[in-house]
Amino acid sequence: MRRGTAEKPCVLLFFFFLAISSHAARNSKKAIGSMKPCKRLVLYYQETMFKGNNVGNATAATIANTNGTGLGPFKFGKTVVFDDPITADKQYLSPPVARAQGFYFYDMKTTYNAWFAYSLVFNSTKYKGTLNIMGADMMDEATRDLSVVGGTGDFFMTRGIVTFRTDEVEGVDYFRVEMDIKLYECY
Amino acid sequence: MRRGTAEKPCVLLFFFFLAISSHAARNSKKAIGSMKPCKRLVLYYQETMFKGNNVGNATAATIANTNGTGLGPFKFGKTVVFDDPITADKQYLSPPVARAQGFYFYDMKTTYNAWFAYSLVFNSTKYKGTLNIMGADMMDEATRDLSVVGGTGDFFMTRGIVTFRTDEVEGVDYFRVEMDIKLYECY
Amino acid sequence: MRRGTAEKPCVLLFFFFLAISSHAARNSKKAIGSMKPCKRLVLYYQETMFKGNNVGNATAATIANTNGTGLGPFKFGKTVVFDDPITADKQYLSPPVARAQGFYFYDMKTTYNAWFAYSLVFNSTKYKGTLNIMGADMMDEATRDLSVVGGTGDFFMTRGIVTFRTDEVEGVDYFRVEMDIKLYECY
Repeated sequence: MRRGTAEKPCVLLFFFFLAISSHAARNSKKAIGSMKPCKRLVLYYQETMFKGNNVGNATAATIANTNGTGLGPFKFGKTVVFDDPITADKQYLSPPVARAQGFYFYDMKTTYNAWFAYSLVFNSTKYKGTLNIMGADMMDEATRDLSVVGGTGDFFMTRGIVTFRTDEVEGVDYFRVEMDIKLYECY
Repeated sequence: MRRGTAEKPCVLLFFFFLAISSHAARNSKKAIGSMKPCKRLVLYYQETMFKGNNVGNATAATIANTNGTGLGPFKFGKTVVFDDPITADKQYLSPPVARAQGFYFYDMKTTYNAWFAYSLVFNSTKYKGTLNIMGADMMDEATRDLSVVGGTGDFFMTRGIVTFRTDEVEGVDYFRVEMDIKLYECY
Repeated sequence: MRRGTAEKPCVLLFFFFLAISSHAARNSKKAIGSMKPCKRLVLYYQETMFKGNNVGNATAATIANTNGTGLGPFKFGKTVVFDDPITADKQYLSPPVARAQGFYFYDMKTTYNAWFAYSLVFNSTKYKGTLNIMGADMMDEATRDLSVVGGTGDFFMTRGIVTFRTDEVEGVDYFRVEMDIKLYECY
């Protein structure tokens, strides 16, 4: 009887820990999907295309198929390399807080659509390091999500999602995209 | 003596929990390698190359070096952008369950070999979202593994492996690859 | 009183476990940033550029914009596909321990700077499998970090950082880069 009295709280603790443990285990998967980012950055990507005579302000150049490959009228296969300024607001002349270095190509014959892979390179007093990003840019959608697949420096080993929202397009010469960067794994 | 009686079960529980905890810790690393995927999709990637006169059914186009760069006879450097239909079975005319949007290039001088980076774009009643994939396609191997490096929407933050298995090749005009997608991190 | 005597060790255990658990939870995030890699490989990447007449020893070829796009004097947009030998030491003729298959392009108008995406393909008695890597190569920096975004085979699902350090450059014909590969997620 006395042993019984003594064991009971231990047995209760046992189930209590079991409950805590399994709850934690389930949450470690589920929580990330619904939980808020461990870091969030809203930035603006500004691209000025090279037209042959604007070396001074151009930040991107077509590297193949200026007019596309002929597979449909939406520049399928046109490929662009960029080193675009990233600003904290929409102003064209705002000081860049990072550079976006990478490339994209158009890849649909029925509408404008692109595929991106690039690095955001930060080198400021606030952040040093890079975010590496890839994914589909379905331009017809109001928003579209790409993957942050890795990071370095202040963004060591991070992962997350970048949501693109087109902010302005001036023909083929200039466009601005809002990048809403949500990181879900921070170290 | 009575305290001894009372403590014993607690001490046992203590070691029991230690054992459970360290087992769990070891498993969190080890289990993933041997454990079965949290999600698995077997799909077929069907590519019809653009030949200049088949805009209607072509889904991919060479964007550089149609015949390769001359570094060997295996089209080294030939680069292709694609927006290929992904079907649930091997039938050419099956309704696509997703699109594969991305690019590849040939990259060996001693055999056919390629490097891929692309997104699987799902927009059906079953799945909405993307899987982002990259890796080497060593065509001579019966199977070869690429990495799922991220996902969005229904595939939020996922990671995994895609195993390629060539299913049919009709010269340079058409090929079909089985993609066995195994996701090991699901949210 | 006797129940009190019996409960005390259990209560202590309770707090002991709470302390252990919260410590572990905090560490799972923090430790990775400061902790040493679960695997580390220091390898050398050796590239010999194709010049038209050196098929025998060339391992890389320009696929677009040999002299760049004209956006500045630093070959902006020049794109190279490679299948370069990876050696365990700096000797040009050392037997490769892996191949690096992928591509890069130059992407700055004010200095030499590149963006890489590639796979390290291992097929030796020691390792079979691939590491998939992407990121910015800011050549002016003494060291720069890229992301290991996934792995297959012996490197199943791994992630980490590759630090590039330029080891030798012979004009446009040959260069050697030390790759210090640190994996922080191993399975």
